[in-house]
Amino acid sequence: MADFLTAQSEDFSKWYNEIVQKADLADYSPVRGCMVIKPYGYTLWERIRDELDRRFKETGHVNAYFPLFIPMSFLQKEAEHVEGFSPELAVVTHGGGEELEEPLVVRPTSETIIGHMYAKWIQSYRDLPVLINQWANVVRWELRTRLFLRTTEFLWQEGHTAHATETEAQEETLRMLDVYTDFAVNEAAIPVLPGRKSESEKFAGAVASYTIEAMMKDGKALQSGTSHFLGQNFAKAFDIKFLDEGNVQQYAWTTSWGVSTRMVGAVVMTHGDDQGLVLPPRLAPIQAVIVPIWRKDQERAAVLEAARALYQQLAPTVRVKLDDRDELSPGWKFNDWEMRGVPLRIEVGPRDVAQQTVMLARRDMPGREGKTSVAQAGLPQSVAEMLATVQQAIYQKALAFRESHIADVQTYDELKEAIQTGFARAWWAGGREDEARLKEETKATVRCIPMEQPGGSGPCVLTGKEAQEIAIFGRAY
Amino acid sequence: MADFLTAQSEDFSKWYNEIVQKADLADYSPVRGCMVIKPYGYTLWERIRDELDRRFKETGHVNAYFPLFIPMSFLQKEAEHVEGFSPELAVVTHGGGEELEEPLVVRPTSETIIGHMYAKWIQSYRDLPVLINQWANVVRWELRTRLFLRTTEFLWQEGHTAHATETEAQEETLRMLDVYTDFAVNEAAIPVLPGRKSESEKFAGAVASYTIEAMMKDGKALQSGTSHFLGQNFAKAFDIKFLDEGNVQQYAWTTSWGVSTRMVGAVVMTHGDDQGLVLPPRLAPIQAVIVPIWRKDQERAAVLEAARALYQQLAPTVRVKLDDRDELSPGWKFNDWEMRGVPLRIEVGPRDVAQQTVMLARRDMPGREGKTSVAQAGLPQSVAEMLATVQQAIYQKALAFRESHIADVQTYDELKEAIQTGFARAWWAGGREDEARLKEETKATVRCIPMEQPGGSGPCVLTGKEAQEIAIFGRAY
Repeated sequence: MADFLTAQSEDFSKWYNEIVQKADLADYSPVRGCMVIKPYGYTLWERIRDELDRRFKETGHVNAYFPLFIPMSFLQKEAEHVEGFSPELAVVTHGGGEELEEPLVVRPTSETIIGHMYAKWIQSYRDLPVLINQWANVVRWELRTRLFLRTTEFLWQEGHTAHATETEAQEETLRMLDVYTDFAVNEAAIPVLPGRKSESEKFAGAVASYTIEAMMKDGKALQSGTSHFLGQNFAKAFDIKFLDEGNVQQYAWTTSWGVSTRMVGAVVMTHGDDQGLVLPPRLAPIQAVIVPIWRKDQERAAVLEAARALYQQLAPTVRVKLDDRDELSPGWKFNDWEMRGVPLRIEVGPRDVAQQTVMLARRDMPGREGKTSVAQAGLPQSVAEMLATVQQAIYQKALAFRESHIADVQTYDELKEAIQTGFARAWWAGGREDEARLKEETKATVRCIPMEQPGGSGPCVLTGKEAQEIAIFGRAY
Repeated sequence: MADFLTAQSEDFSKWYNEIVQKADLADYSPVRGCMVIKPYGYTLWERIRDELDRRFKETGHVNAYFPLFIPMSFLQKEAEHVEGFSPELAVVTHGGGEELEEPLVVRPTSETIIGHMYAKWIQSYRDLPVLINQWANVVRWELRTRLFLRTTEFLWQEGHTAHATETEAQEETLRMLDVYTDFAVNEAAIPVLPGRKSESEKFAGAVASYTIEAMMKDGKALQSGTSHFLGQNFAKAFDIKFLDEGNVQQYAWTTSWGVSTRMVGAVVMTHGDDQGLVLPPRLAPIQAVIVPIWRKDQERAAVLEAARALYQQLAPTVRVKLDDRDELSPGWKFNDWEMRGVPLRIEVGPRDVAQQTVMLARRDMPGREGKTSVAQAGLPQSVAEMLATVQQAIYQKALAFRESHIADVQTYDELKEAIQTGFARAWWAGGREDEARLKEETKATVRCIPMEQPGGSGPCVLTGKEAQEIAIFGRAY
């Protein structure tokens, strides 16, 4: 339809790269693998950040900030951790004109430096739990990068908590998985499958990793947030110990959990269409745009006056923009704001001025059926209701898409077919070697072992062994 | 008074280092020169950030994010810039296990990489002005570091704007200086002297730099925010050009301006006393703390019930904390919250329960005169009024301190004496060499040439030449 944009059905990947730039979400940078987050994209990230941050604080967490640089020796203290991250490190070797005695790593994640500080801060059971989150930039040297999805530097939050008991730490891990699920569903309107990561997909150094997996419009999976139960691995590596109530020294139990700017990519690829972005109202930088329409010059003043009054009426409760640019036609503006994914357009023409109405046009429902004429009186209420309706509608649409692209499969051949267009769901009892074979043969991976399980057992789709759990399989970003 | 804390009069510097750690604002990190901002300190920074960010948005700015890494060659494009920053750079030489072809600098400031992007984004006068701010971490390799005041890595905001005309860019530079002044005075309760930097103190690459200078309680100056008019220096170095309305190609005019986590240090050293921090109510992470007081066990339930009800009453409008810890005495709690600088303590005892009152105790006015008994009915209003009073009072106190520590001086000897305890104000017509001599002989520098000038002229305090302007002199952090 839109000739400025590649159709999703033609080349989804190309569509993504184009819309991210055309809608001014991000731009490539002169530094290999890094991105520039443009104001529109950054405002979307600020909305994501604020809604997550609110949930973190409601669940008792506080923010802090730890250093960007980590001594190389710190990473080496946890064997699996250093093995997992070594190939991705950026290393500072010179500072202030001199070569450093010990190279510094630019943090790829902060378990090690935070573990070091926790060892200093935690002495007694009275100091626990420690519930800290950090908003920060991290660097992982990536060979193949995509804006928002995989970049050398990205922004994220990383929660790091320490607890007196294994149970508490496990509860925290799952609590944050719930927080992420709640955020994805209710703010980003993205249906996600919460589940456990398989052995080969878990975080380097974790006992167990949990994830929320989303399905993009091309049927591929995007890991959209992770929560890790770290057991006592990092506590032992960094000597995080405390005296318990019985005055006995114990190692603490720790967790970590994160969501990154990747979430912006998830929003784009879950809801976008051939006209461009479709943003969920709760996260949209601009929720509604007012477009004044006139043909004759003598209509202009009255229409603009009405549009400005409506803007004043809406501004206290709605993130609204008035597009009163003179040099552009209403049709051009319609296309432009559609491309940018603004959930609601408010049209005001001479007839609306006469009848004290406006026309609301939904981004998610192009054409006549998405248009509703409403009274100017009580507009903030009508707009709020319509935005809530849109939020629900795009969630339901994404959910229906995902459900129609998950196939319950019994055989390996059926699995191979299903992951061409979406996810496969099947009994699974494979180990690391089976996963490696699966990935090599199909390019798919175990995305997660869902928290919701049917119970009972069945034959593993790959090995035929009796399996107690079902897993979700898919190709992933 | 407080035996856990060195007295300010004994050793101000030691007092500062102690209180920053004891009040849990920050901690040293295992990485040389870097700090860990602890939750209490970070919440204070979040308040500073939110209040600045609100002002930036009200003046038409938007946030974006640019890469952490800058190619070394970019810095070299602006001669003064690279000369100024070279000695302070942290350099990444290896990424993903391989040596990089071109070393990457960890940004010490972002004029260069942002200049590169602006050259790409700006084509026409219609693209101007560009009014972008970034919240980010930056790294400057420092030899002697102090928590918050001078650290290798710090957090800040850096605004970068581009304009079609010199006048517009100059207006922007001064507008942001006003924003900083307004923030310092009305949020941080810190009186500041806005002024122009001298030639040798200005930003590397700027045509003119402006600053807000604050006086700490030891009489030393702290540069608390800067705003730079960059002329066309960076536009020429990075080719930021646009077609003007007459279709003629022009270089843009740019500005940059920043405030950093140093502001936390300014708050500590402006208001703190021998009992610890004194935080301005508008920035305080906790504005009021409720301390329940009982002697007999049978009083406990009623006092706690009242304290909880008061907490519920206040929580919607006040950042309030209820300290209902059982194991600690009221006296211990008083000292602890005083040390942490909470502006208002709300005491509730058995008599208060009976009389439906509470005792409000001001942090800034220890002893009986800072105590007021008020009714529980309407407490949110009484607390709000008291917080506003405290905000005003600590500003007035800081202003009176500063005014009594600025001396108008005529002679170099008078200047030398004045800067032992505060600032000197004098006629000034010196150049770079005079400034160097002044610094060597007195350890003082020209802090700023104030925006407010008396007019007329007089003999330069150092050179005796006829001077048109007065300057502020002081030793600085």
